[in-house]
Amino acid sequence: MRIDGLQYANWSEKIFRQMREGGVDAVHVTISYHENFRETVLNFEAWNRWFEQFPHLIMKGTTASDIDTARATGRTAIFFGFQNPSPIEDDIGLVEIVHTLGARFMQLTYNNQSLLATGCYEDEDPGITRMGRQVIKEMNRVGLVVDMSHSADRSTIEAAEISERPIAITHANPHEWHPARRNKRSDVIRAVTENGGMLGFSLYPHHLKDGSDCTLQSFCEAIARTADTYGIDHLGIGSDLCQDQPDSVVEWMRVGRWSKEIDYGEGSAAAPGFPPMPSWFQDNRDFGNIEAGLRKVGMNDEDVAKVMGGNWYRFFRDNFGPLKDG
Amino acid sequence: MRIDGLQYANWSEKIFRQMREGGVDAVHVTISYHENFRETVLNFEAWNRWFEQFPHLIMKGTTASDIDTARATGRTAIFFGFQNPSPIEDDIGLVEIVHTLGARFMQLTYNNQSLLATGCYEDEDPGITRMGRQVIKEMNRVGLVVDMSHSADRSTIEAAEISERPIAITHANPHEWHPARRNKRSDVIRAVTENGGMLGFSLYPHHLKDGSDCTLQSFCEAIARTADTYGIDHLGIGSDLCQDQPDSVVEWMRVGRWSKEIDYGEGSAAAPGFPPMPSWFQDNRDFGNIEAGLRKVGMNDEDVAKVMGGNWYRFFRDNFGPLKDG
Repeated sequence: MRIDGLQYANWSEKIFRQMREGGVDAVHVTISYHENFRETVLNFEAWNRWFEQFPHLIMKGTTASDIDTARATGRTAIFFGFQNPSPIEDDIGLVEIVHTLGARFMQLTYNNQSLLATGCYEDEDPGITRMGRQVIKEMNRVGLVVDMSHSADRSTIEAAEISERPIAITHANPHEWHPARRNKRSDVIRAVTENGGMLGFSLYPHHLKDGSDCTLQSFCEAIARTADTYGIDHLGIGSDLCQDQPDSVVEWMRVGRWSKEIDYGEGSAAAPGFPPMPSWFQDNRDFGNIEAGLRKVGMNDEDVAKVMGGNWYRFFRDNFGPLKDG
Repeated sequence: MRIDGLQYANWSEKIFRQMREGGVDAVHVTISYHENFRETVLNFEAWNRWFEQFPHLIMKGTTASDIDTARATGRTAIFFGFQNPSPIEDDIGLVEIVHTLGARFMQLTYNNQSLLATGCYEDEDPGITRMGRQVIKEMNRVGLVVDMSHSADRSTIEAAEISERPIAITHANPHEWHPARRNKRSDVIRAVTENGGMLGFSLYPHHLKDGSDCTLQSFCEAIARTADTYGIDHLGIGSDLCQDQPDSVVEWMRVGRWSKEIDYGEGSAAAPGFPPMPSWFQDNRDFGNIEAGLRKVGMNDEDVAKVMGGNWYRFFRDNFGPLKDG
């Protein structure tokens, strides 16, 4: 089973076909960066149209059992998520609404301070806000997973502790392996995994040691080493694949509408666009390379299967439905 | 089984308890008159909160099988509908979105011309519009029922013919029995029922012969006579109960935001508010009176059961899911 914990491609039939060629059974796709509620609904609408247009390639996913259906029918199940809480605006009632529409992950922050928590680019991190505590509780109730990929350390650790259900870092790597601002320090990974949460290893070059030149071996060794420390059951892939996006999109991701000035995020004035992906992971057809790479660094079949999709499957199964009483 | 084809009460625990006392298994409730999309979402949110607050009295209904669950657990299943297409604004993609959120009926018009069709208070009725044809097709696809209760004759007949699936007049009576503007002429009822559609008999006094003084016998005889003409399988109750609403609400229903002048609709300057309900149908506890009344005018048990809920159950079962291929 192959499940990708995050993608944000410029979707097309070509990419959906590549998902099938790569044997990708499920993908968590971002449908909102800075969009407000109504704009996010337009993105749900766009996906409804793709489901209608390409029913033999993709299907909407809302529960883990949809992955079984997708596998049985040769399709990829698409699960929705937001990289920012902007879709719920200042209205806690929208948490259940977006869950009903199909959202299954929501980041509490995207780099900046939000109404709920602090992003990883702020200087100060005062932790989870008053509204943040309420929203985490409501997300727990309905089955919308807290994603802290772009959040600051204290906020992430607090979210892991406040949340009654496991949380996720869908796409980031260990800071120890590559000290990028978006990668996660040990105490953050520990707080998330100790509470049953998941870390999805990112293939976005700014998160990789040696960037676009990162070797498959280095990437796979980082996964194996992280498994030794935090347990194999908490790791997956969250490729952060932004295939076929124009550079205007990375600017939208970084700047949204919050600044009149350019913010280069993980890039720079000299390299403002999307960085080139590593040679061994260009698109959805390359998941087999990672699988082979993990075996090559000595991981056994069972553990490889967990990282490639088994762990995400279990996590989806346990966390996408309403909180059980008691 | 007791199913009410339309209510718009000022919802409260009291009313939910009365539904249980009256043995009402399911109700189609209006959650939008003139609200735009975002405002309608606020109404979905309000209902989510009621479902959370009163889980032993009510539950959300989206399929006929939810009525079975409600019956088995002693609750009332609440199905959502709109009396106007205002929630989809000018965006056909919102048809599937509101269906996903739980909407199961949508009137194409509320008294006035809409983007889709003509209301029963307009002087001219040019029939279903270009967008109307597209929206009916989309409603058919996802399983959102076309409701023409407040529409003009030509528009209603065209909707019944254009729609690939049966349509409904959830709350109106035969014009022949009581010639109110909102009641339906023979050719309209024929077009709807011949295509498998439903007529829900209204208890709103302006739709009743002799208004608030209408007798139970007169009402039940009208149902029996209509069954003789159009077939028992196409009739149900759509009480139009607006319990505990202040008169400001009937003004909102009639005027919305479309006029700066007062429009009295079915009322008058002398009687602008909600008319008093007939003595034998004050609230949800009085469905038994109608059941007894139908028996008294000679209807057999099987037919009474159809009118009181069996027909709506079948209609819900057949029309709330996606259109089957072929």
